[in-house]
Amino acid sequence: MGNIPILKLYDCLIVSIQWELDDQTALELQENLLQKIHMTNARGVVIDLTSIDFIDSFIAKVLGDIIEMAKLMGAKVVITGIQPAVAITLIELGIRLDGVLTALDLENGLEKLQQELGD
Amino acid sequence: MGNIPILKLYDCLIVSIQWELDDQTALELQENLLQKIHMTNARGVVIDLTSIDFIDSFIAKVLGDIIEMAKLMGAKVVITGIQPAVAITLIELGIRLDGVLTALDLENGLEKLQQELGD
Repeated sequence: MGNIPILKLYDCLIVSIQWELDDQTALELQENLLQKIHMTNARGVVIDLTSIDFIDSFIAKVLGDIIEMAKLMGAKVVITGIQPAVAITLIELGIRLDGVLTALDLENGLEKLQQELGD
Repeated sequence: MGNIPILKLYDCLIVSIQWELDDQTALELQENLLQKIHMTNARGVVIDLTSIDFIDSFIAKVLGDIIEMAKLMGAKVVITGIQPAVAITLIELGIRLDGVLTALDLENGLEKLQQELGD
């Protein structure tokens, strides 16, 4: 029940996180997302954090891990809608999300991803 | 926690139902979706049922209600990914989803919606 839905749209996956994640849900998301990248041959992933106004250090770490893992599997990741407090947490924890695309909202994120994927 | 995320993409809302709904969650979805249509001035809604392989009569009724209500508010609804058993339940319960657009998957649903909205 607590799972985060993962939408497939063309060759991208969209994950919209709309409430604070607990640790278990975050790990499940990590596993499900990687599995879905594998299953669908997705070339890009958009993770939308618009509704999240706070993340703790564990979730920040999992998020960083997800991005690295997706990259290893060949999928580009765009993070959208990072709010001020989330940006502060990420930087203060030293999670710099190097090489990750970011965008203001889901629309911009998808556009950026399509550009990067050369469509 | 059990809430269904509602994504906004351009002037459409996307709801992807990826597990069987219980009655409470279905009613919450109804309320949240109508509120979000109001807040975002969405002109279209895609409800994706791809992952649902069974619905009971209560959920079928709520689904029918959501479609009618969204229509009253001026939003077109597309249902995507209706599986055989779901189609059987809907028809056997006399829920004919008149005037509702349907499509095979999310991509087709969004395209159909854009066509209908004249974009």
